[in-house]
Amino acid sequence: MKSYLEMSKEELEAELKKNRAALDEWADKNLTLDLTRGKPNQSQLDLSSKMLGVISDRGDCFSTTGLDCRNYGILDGLPETKKLFSDLLDIPADNILILGNSSLNAMYDTIVRCMLLGVAGGHEPWVRQGRIKFLCPSPGYDRHFTICRTLGIEMVPIRMTSEGPDMNMVYDLACSDPSVKGIWCVPKFSNPEGITYSDEVVEQFAALKPAAPDFRIFWDNAYAVHELYDEEVHLANIFERAKEYGTEDNIFYFASTSKITFPGSGIAIMAASERNLEQIRPILATQTIGYDKINQMRHVKYFGSAEGIHEHMRRHAEILRPKFEAVEHVFDKRLSGLDIARWNNPRGGYFISMYVMPGCAKKVYQLARSVGVTLTAAGASYPYGRDPEDSNLRIAPTFPELSELKDATEILCICTKIVAAEKLLSKMN
Amino acid sequence: MKSYLEMSKEELEAELKKNRAALDEWADKNLTLDLTRGKPNQSQLDLSSKMLGVISDRGDCFSTTGLDCRNYGILDGLPETKKLFSDLLDIPADNILILGNSSLNAMYDTIVRCMLLGVAGGHEPWVRQGRIKFLCPSPGYDRHFTICRTLGIEMVPIRMTSEGPDMNMVYDLACSDPSVKGIWCVPKFSNPEGITYSDEVVEQFAALKPAAPDFRIFWDNAYAVHELYDEEVHLANIFERAKEYGTEDNIFYFASTSKITFPGSGIAIMAASERNLEQIRPILATQTIGYDKINQMRHVKYFGSAEGIHEHMRRHAEILRPKFEAVEHVFDKRLSGLDIARWNNPRGGYFISMYVMPGCAKKVYQLARSVGVTLTAAGASYPYGRDPEDSNLRIAPTFPELSELKDATEILCICTKIVAAEKLLSKMN
Repeated sequence: MKSYLEMSKEELEAELKKNRAALDEWADKNLTLDLTRGKPNQSQLDLSSKMLGVISDRGDCFSTTGLDCRNYGILDGLPETKKLFSDLLDIPADNILILGNSSLNAMYDTIVRCMLLGVAGGHEPWVRQGRIKFLCPSPGYDRHFTICRTLGIEMVPIRMTSEGPDMNMVYDLACSDPSVKGIWCVPKFSNPEGITYSDEVVEQFAALKPAAPDFRIFWDNAYAVHELYDEEVHLANIFERAKEYGTEDNIFYFASTSKITFPGSGIAIMAASERNLEQIRPILATQTIGYDKINQMRHVKYFGSAEGIHEHMRRHAEILRPKFEAVEHVFDKRLSGLDIARWNNPRGGYFISMYVMPGCAKKVYQLARSVGVTLTAAGASYPYGRDPEDSNLRIAPTFPELSELKDATEILCICTKIVAAEKLLSKMN
Repeated sequence: MKSYLEMSKEELEAELKKNRAALDEWADKNLTLDLTRGKPNQSQLDLSSKMLGVISDRGDCFSTTGLDCRNYGILDGLPETKKLFSDLLDIPADNILILGNSSLNAMYDTIVRCMLLGVAGGHEPWVRQGRIKFLCPSPGYDRHFTICRTLGIEMVPIRMTSEGPDMNMVYDLACSDPSVKGIWCVPKFSNPEGITYSDEVVEQFAALKPAAPDFRIFWDNAYAVHELYDEEVHLANIFERAKEYGTEDNIFYFASTSKITFPGSGIAIMAASERNLEQIRPILATQTIGYDKINQMRHVKYFGSAEGIHEHMRRHAEILRPKFEAVEHVFDKRLSGLDIARWNNPRGGYFISMYVMPGCAKKVYQLARSVGVTLTAAGASYPYGRDPEDSNLRIAPTFPELSELKDATEILCICTKIVAAEKLLSKMN
């Protein structure tokens, strides 16, 4: 196809007219299509529904140690649940806390602890240190940014490269400014770009010696085992790398089964160095009487082993792969060669990130919405909702049915072309 | 029996000798008996174990509104779960949030929100107001006090009367000092005294106009339906009373199913005025992706209705009543008339509170411990662990088996007599 950038005014006008007519046709269908949430489809939830039956009476509730999961006791997780996640994530069981139903909550809680009580080592609580900042690789996960916004933590955007965050920016800021207290990372199949941090980037995180002694890397490994294809995408082990630099205390690691079993009825974990856990555990004991051990046991009994989870994830991939490929296929067919959009083809995770022409994302979002296709609001993946380029759109292909997804993507492509043609034409006038 | 206070030196020495010999006999048995935790016994947990089976596959996971409980969605609770608690506690469903697995966590979270973000009405966050204080009716729940201690909130003990906290003290402090930001209340079957606040006390809480505009009453109705006898113990409805004074915003109400179904695998709720909830909900949406809706549905399906819960609680009472009565029976038989101890005979809840002679609680605790009976540490029910009289001991009769409980109480009575005799004798020398 001919690049829009090489088209004459007449050619662009013809394109615009054709695409507006096409959009009108779609509009007549009165569709309601939702590409907003990184939400599993019911068929994915069905994969785990048998888990609900594995604990059905008292006999199912006893730990290998004899502990009755139905009662008080054990603050930070059953030994067998720790082992399951230890095997899965290659982190020693002793460094793992099994927490509640939401890793987002575990992260919020962790920041709140830092704010009110500081981190290990007796530094001042963050609330007593005046204005503090977090580094925010962008685009990123909107809910990370909402935590900062709610708690009044200033967000500093960090450019994303194809290998992870721009580590020059990270080093410049983290190593010079002691008010920089943390960084948000989704190191594997990043939200929304699907990028997995290269070994070099992970090494640079491990080697980082921040200006603030109470700086922490929030390593949100949300998609640790969420490959779309039958090939493992390698992410270096941050704790192992950090050990060589003596920087393990810098890392707060999070993961969950929200997109393995059930969002909201899964298990969240946190992993950290012994020194960090020694500071955290007594505070946890103040916060709660403990977490849902029956649900922990449910997960252990259902999966049996880390391999059980990997096998389960292959079934998720079978459902998700055609959806991701459908979007990519429509993008390829409709947009490639036009020079008005680019997108990633992630090997895992929950999102496809699309970049339309600068200054066009909001318009594409609005136009799509006007014909019934809801995308995540343009800018949502950036701190304060401000995409400096107004270019990024996050596509969440998991929840809709395949046919809906194809329709929505077709419409999105038409909208992209209309807005691009309008922009190019406006420059010509 | 003759009062210890009327005994001669010789009589006391004879008593002491006899009881020391009795204790030696118990010591020879090498028992390990634990009266520390307000923890249900396995037979109580068995009452709820069939609940685990009511959700065993996908078909069980849909709300009446069609919502799939297995997925993201709904921040603050399923409508049917809200209705269940609304009926049970006589609070409008719209004022109820269904939260996680621990009401302690809900309370901690609530205080943390106040500290970092203030309460409804735009007042300064508590952390920016310098030293703040909480009123602590004592003896009270140690974990409430631990929250204050961890977060650096100064605790001001409030005397307990047989009708609830000493409201003169509460009014004096809350109405004069704007640094007093809250009060802990367990209004029904209080921990550890088993006292239910009288209508007058509840009315006084409703009528309270504190000096601090951001003062909150933490109304922890942990034992709302935990009667031991087949008679309802009346607690006035704080929200209804408050409405008449326009003070609904002063109240944060908490409850849970920890001692209805499973500690750690139950449901916690919070109730508050519309104005408070409007401030809290957006923060909650930052904190979490939502709570465990499958577990909410499990509770709804199992109980069916509030009456289902009441019926269930009658079965708990059948297990618990003989235990409470066994302790009371031994106390009566061994201690009544001696003038060295008093205790309450609660009509519900989880504890019996015992008062030994002033200055004796720690010694009784240590002596009992030396022969294998573990009580909650003396003083634990007071702010900073300091019982000004060193007199109160908290007995948790629910967890041990009946025969163990009787043995432990016998030992406790002997220890009480030994320490009292020693004290009285030391004064005679």
